[in-house]
Amino acid sequence: MFNGLKTYGSTDLLSKLKGKKPFFVCIIATTATANIPGITGAGATPELMEYTPAGDVELIIRGELRCCNIPPQTIIDGASAPTPAMLTKAALELTNVPYLIADAGSRIKPDVPYLLINNDHGEDIRTGTAVKDPKKIFEDSKLIAKELSKSVEYLVIGESIPAGTTTALGVLTALGYDANFKVSGSTPINPHELKKDVVMEGIANAKIDIGNVNPFDAVKAVGDPMIPAVAGMVFGSDIPVLLAGGTQMAAICSFIKAIDPEFDFSNILIGTTSFVAKDENSDLLNIISQIGDISVNVVDPYFEKSDNDGLKNYLKGFVKEGAGAGGSILMALLLGYSIEDIRKKIEEVCK
Amino acid sequence: MFNGLKTYGSTDLLSKLKGKKPFFVCIIATTATANIPGITGAGATPELMEYTPAGDVELIIRGELRCCNIPPQTIIDGASAPTPAMLTKAALELTNVPYLIADAGSRIKPDVPYLLINNDHGEDIRTGTAVKDPKKIFEDSKLIAKELSKSVEYLVIGESIPAGTTTALGVLTALGYDANFKVSGSTPINPHELKKDVVMEGIANAKIDIGNVNPFDAVKAVGDPMIPAVAGMVFGSDIPVLLAGGTQMAAICSFIKAIDPEFDFSNILIGTTSFVAKDENSDLLNIISQIGDISVNVVDPYFEKSDNDGLKNYLKGFVKEGAGAGGSILMALLLGYSIEDIRKKIEEVCK
Repeated sequence: MFNGLKTYGSTDLLSKLKGKKPFFVCIIATTATANIPGITGAGATPELMEYTPAGDVELIIRGELRCCNIPPQTIIDGASAPTPAMLTKAALELTNVPYLIADAGSRIKPDVPYLLINNDHGEDIRTGTAVKDPKKIFEDSKLIAKELSKSVEYLVIGESIPAGTTTALGVLTALGYDANFKVSGSTPINPHELKKDVVMEGIANAKIDIGNVNPFDAVKAVGDPMIPAVAGMVFGSDIPVLLAGGTQMAAICSFIKAIDPEFDFSNILIGTTSFVAKDENSDLLNIISQIGDISVNVVDPYFEKSDNDGLKNYLKGFVKEGAGAGGSILMALLLGYSIEDIRKKIEEVCK
Repeated sequence: MFNGLKTYGSTDLLSKLKGKKPFFVCIIATTATANIPGITGAGATPELMEYTPAGDVELIIRGELRCCNIPPQTIIDGASAPTPAMLTKAALELTNVPYLIADAGSRIKPDVPYLLINNDHGEDIRTGTAVKDPKKIFEDSKLIAKELSKSVEYLVIGESIPAGTTTALGVLTALGYDANFKVSGSTPINPHELKKDVVMEGIANAKIDIGNVNPFDAVKAVGDPMIPAVAGMVFGSDIPVLLAGGTQMAAICSFIKAIDPEFDFSNILIGTTSFVAKDENSDLLNIISQIGDISVNVVDPYFEKSDNDGLKNYLKGFVKEGAGAGGSILMALLLGYSIEDIRKKIEEVCK
């Protein structure tokens, strides 16, 4: 449909959303799971990791940091790639789409105005007690989406939570999906064994009967606060929802299906980056195929054409996705901007 | 223009807004000024006073209380009147207008999802140091209004802050307006002398040169956190703004004019209740006339036709206004509902 876009599954909803009015929400949260050494590439240093969601949204809104001094980024062997929030910022600036930040539970609060859905950050999923009250987060998030969906034509929902692919694996596993070695990660070498061990420890501690657990109990045990917040937005919205993310959004779809096995996914799209979709160390499409017929839309900003070394590192498996980057680029495509316009804007924003 | 509406000043903007799409924001805050005995009628008891803003928005969103057990109301000599939040709730339910709650600084936080603009509640204005950083509240509120104004045609902004008329008097006085004995109040007998004394103590302690003070310094000294939040929304909005309130909104207009003496008020409306406008113990129109040509629109829900004793007490000077009640009724009129429909809905909501 557009240069730079490849769709897996139906293009029906995508066609309907062309030129339509979106509202973008970036939901941030933290989980203490991210403190496990080696589990995430978020943050310039391990100490800065937890500042990533707050830093991301400060950059999006203010174009400058308030919570810390060093921008969120992924650094490996001295090479670095900027936070995907810069891709999102570029798409928002280009399109002038209205947006809000929502906090579903971050330990470090951003210095920006934001929607407060939940105050408590997620705990280490190894404990088996990761999220205090996922049902309340879900219900309150529904209330917000109900209001936001009244004045636009579709919602775009992104997320920023370090170690979010591990908690995604937790929920997928608890709900009975085969997602080991299939979730994405922010580093070229994905620590799959570690993620699996962490998840299995949490599942054991929560005494979860895999594949036979209430979905809210699954999130409570081995999920994160962002998951019920995004799912609540989907249930609260009266309009289509573009889930802007990769395997974490797949986990949310599995959670949605577990809440309502008859859920109609024809009003839902996943929008993510080619860095996730092409990654040989994860398998988004396989996870999705286990859940149902969900349209997966993959954008490729052709960073090989860029002079920016940080962006080029995305091609090597750095970062891949986050803060709604892929979905916000898809949103810009739907609003008529070319992938070349979008990449140029990303380069400009990264300067 | 409508049965139940009387306009003072231009009807130009009002005519333009007929049938247009609004977004409603209720901004809550608290000020320790409200703890001064006798200064406010908010709350069933003095202890419950501070729960009024949180309770108001819990009732609007959830239809039930979470922060406390007794609903916000004004009780005098055993007679009570329900919080004006019930009027707002009725207008929102009738019209299905999208809305959000915003916290500009409340000591008691509501158990609802809300936009967090500022965390620090206002201090007693007698100290002369009432609001920590009004400029930051103003700037952050601008950011929110910029986003919210992208997808609708006008904003409606209400407030809930006990003792807000006293802090309004503070700002009006500091900025050089003659507002003594002219601000409204939530009780039939308005404690004007007390309000004046409180304001003058704050002005003295802040060493304010009356009529010759930076507007942000005036709010910092003797204002409240709601004032810069509402003003920020006005400056951040790219669309018209209906200020839903009485003399507190007049104080905000004085603050706006002090920030920008050339400010164009033709895109601003005040919408309030007949209980404020007809009150012989205050003088909204006089205050407005000192500021400039601002359209004041007064709605009368004809509570004398109601069987509800609590609502009838509004006719005796209880409550009068708050939580955007008058402006939200005006919004419903603009959307084609009759004043009879609206009163019936208010009666239903109050049951």
